[in-house]
Amino acid sequence: MSAKTTSEKARKESTAMSSDQPHPQLSRRRLLGAAGAGGAAGLALGAGGYALAGPGPKQSTAAVTPATALGSSAVPFHGAHQAGIVEPMQSTLHATAFDLSPGIGRPGLTALMKRWSAAAAAMAEGRTPPGLTDDQVALDAGPSSLTVTFGFGASVFAKAGLAAQLPGELAALPPFPEDRIDRARSDGDLWLQVCADDPLVAFHAMRTLQRLAAGQAAPRWQMTGFSRAPGATARPVTGRNLMGQIDGTNNPKPSDADFASRVFVPSGGRPAWMAGGSYAVFRRIRMLLDDWDQQSLTVQERTVGRRKASGAPLSGGTEATPVDLARQNADGSLAVPGDAHVRVAAPASNQGAAMLRRGYSYHDGLRPDGAPDAGLLFICFQSDPGTGFVPVQRKLARGDALSRFLVHESSGLYAIPGGAPADGYVGQALLEG
Amino acid sequence: MSAKTTSEKARKESTAMSSDQPHPQLSRRRLLGAAGAGGAAGLALGAGGYALAGPGPKQSTAAVTPATALGSSAVPFHGAHQAGIVEPMQSTLHATAFDLSPGIGRPGLTALMKRWSAAAAAMAEGRTPPGLTDDQVALDAGPSSLTVTFGFGASVFAKAGLAAQLPGELAALPPFPEDRIDRARSDGDLWLQVCADDPLVAFHAMRTLQRLAAGQAAPRWQMTGFSRAPGATARPVTGRNLMGQIDGTNNPKPSDADFASRVFVPSGGRPAWMAGGSYAVFRRIRMLLDDWDQQSLTVQERTVGRRKASGAPLSGGTEATPVDLARQNADGSLAVPGDAHVRVAAPASNQGAAMLRRGYSYHDGLRPDGAPDAGLLFICFQSDPGTGFVPVQRKLARGDALSRFLVHESSGLYAIPGGAPADGYVGQALLEG
Repeated sequence: MSAKTTSEKARKESTAMSSDQPHPQLSRRRLLGAAGAGGAAGLALGAGGYALAGPGPKQSTAAVTPATALGSSAVPFHGAHQAGIVEPMQSTLHATAFDLSPGIGRPGLTALMKRWSAAAAAMAEGRTPPGLTDDQVALDAGPSSLTVTFGFGASVFAKAGLAAQLPGELAALPPFPEDRIDRARSDGDLWLQVCADDPLVAFHAMRTLQRLAAGQAAPRWQMTGFSRAPGATARPVTGRNLMGQIDGTNNPKPSDADFASRVFVPSGGRPAWMAGGSYAVFRRIRMLLDDWDQQSLTVQERTVGRRKASGAPLSGGTEATPVDLARQNADGSLAVPGDAHVRVAAPASNQGAAMLRRGYSYHDGLRPDGAPDAGLLFICFQSDPGTGFVPVQRKLARGDALSRFLVHESSGLYAIPGGAPADGYVGQALLEG
Repeated sequence: MSAKTTSEKARKESTAMSSDQPHPQLSRRRLLGAAGAGGAAGLALGAGGYALAGPGPKQSTAAVTPATALGSSAVPFHGAHQAGIVEPMQSTLHATAFDLSPGIGRPGLTALMKRWSAAAAAMAEGRTPPGLTDDQVALDAGPSSLTVTFGFGASVFAKAGLAAQLPGELAALPPFPEDRIDRARSDGDLWLQVCADDPLVAFHAMRTLQRLAAGQAAPRWQMTGFSRAPGATARPVTGRNLMGQIDGTNNPKPSDADFASRVFVPSGGRPAWMAGGSYAVFRRIRMLLDDWDQQSLTVQERTVGRRKASGAPLSGGTEATPVDLARQNADGSLAVPGDAHVRVAAPASNQGAAMLRRGYSYHDGLRPDGAPDAGLLFICFQSDPGTGFVPVQRKLARGDALSRFLVHESSGLYAIPGGAPADGYVGQALLEG
């Protein structure tokens, strides 16, 4: 039950961090959080917890297969913020962009967001989505910490007659040097991040949401990512990417004093419907692994600025030790080289810019040239991409030693609305505003 | 440690089943199996167990991250049979075919098989492969039940000057009705099945083996598959495929009296170098999920012949109940329809033909037409494909209701040599014969 406990803790801390902002959903969020925790605990003990966590019908999965702690772990769908942002990463990701079908408009989008929210809430509790009573695929694993996170791309606002509500933050990302963006695998009216600790649960949830959109929105692109298997390593938070480097050490933590303001739009911000929301940047970043693997360990570590095995910065200490950018070697050279990734990306090098990264590795076999089609599905959340991703990436693309081994192939920027209350749906403040 | 315990048990049972055949590797296998089990138990308790299991240097992973039971679970590489056949499926698969580089011949192939075997043996114990001392990628998870299984395609024999050793069993599979095979993603001189319970461990092992082949063999195609996350469901053996159906119920079990003779080539069989070996059939089978999902639960269950939720045959009982092909409904119709998959595929319908299936789901995003590029990486092992896969598939392709929802896109047939003794390598009996 450790995954569950950690998820709950992260969400509660996040809620606590933003509790200095008056927010109509907070009290409901707290109530719901408590109910969700009780419901999930009930799940681990048997099937009796479902009714606590949501309004859906009780269902017994015990007749099929008893639940495990991993499978029955649940992350509440409802809350001040959407799930899938502050929770520890699950092991499987499906990222999918949808385009609205012609003529759907605001009523169709509203109906879709209602249907999607109800389905996501049900599946997060291991229940069959409303209206799909014959759908029993995921029942023998439980929700496996399933989260579904919904986003709006800039292109959806005009299509839905909501151009006046388009946030300035969704202005197109600037072109970065060396970008090789395939627009057919970028952007999109709607964006869904589906994550779970079981690959079949995640696949089934993604497919179910796609089925529920039939006739109203069609997938534009779809990508699958993975992180470590639950329980494969005792490493608590950070993972390793396909280059073998520990990744995410400098991520903001829910316990940071400025965590909420960096990640979430405050109530009272603009536009008003984005209160409690965030902005997600998505980048498919291919790694030139054949080139990378030919570098010596020394070159790899100087490129990143950290030890490969431990993640400790080259300025000394352990993974958790802050990078000392000024530290010099005995010969007067910088311990962390001038173009090392950790130096160029460090908040201290970027006016304190920080974003919450939540990226997954991907591997789609071989490219036509025989090189691996593999790398990072980079995802980050921030309250303002103009002070988060954009300035950091601008600097990385120009001066980062690591960028020689990376190709940015897809790009997306999405407004992630705040979470839905128990009787609402994601995007309600926009669509009914 | 349940995965480990189960793996050990399966391999021991398999060894016991074949112990009525005199085999020079068996006594070493048994010794090694015991040492391997001791070594793995040592791993779970700390880092001290490595030296028990293999000749490599002791390495401490404790300084990086403490091992978990899942991560430290190990399957011995050496034995009478190759690993990755009788063990319970791990959660991640990389299937890769290689073609020999021009002019490599038998000496080059021999050197490659020695290098690959040494690397696979080391990584199966969580050690760095010989000669790659700076490679520390997988250290913080341990071997995670890694297995590497090597196969020879028909095309390698002439290239290596071994045409006289080509088994008759490697004659090309016959074309089946409705096959749509892409030969560029089929066949290959060599075939590697890499499986582990952690995706990064599996990816790293596959990449390491590819690096070690540089200049001697290049990847021809590469595919990635997944099964349930370890521990996500308490279901003991069978998994669910992407159609939602429980799959593998009728698989031969190591406890079956005829298991060894169905799966492994006996010593004394032909050719002699295949003693203890098997033949693997690989098929990439795309599922027409958009069509499938439009069928009612009733149609889906009659197509397969089993209940979707429980896997019980339509003739009654539970998943474990044998299918009663003769059973009739009250109206006199067959309980299991005449074209139901379980009927057409049943050993009773195919002169007792059986094969050990070990397939993985795959999902590679969207096809150009918007349909999911997803389905089954079918893998089966048998002592003779001419009495295993071929007659069953011939029948399925003509009369199976399920085949309307399947497209066979890739195909491969490989000779899987017997396992290597502790001082040998896979393929030694062929290459030094």
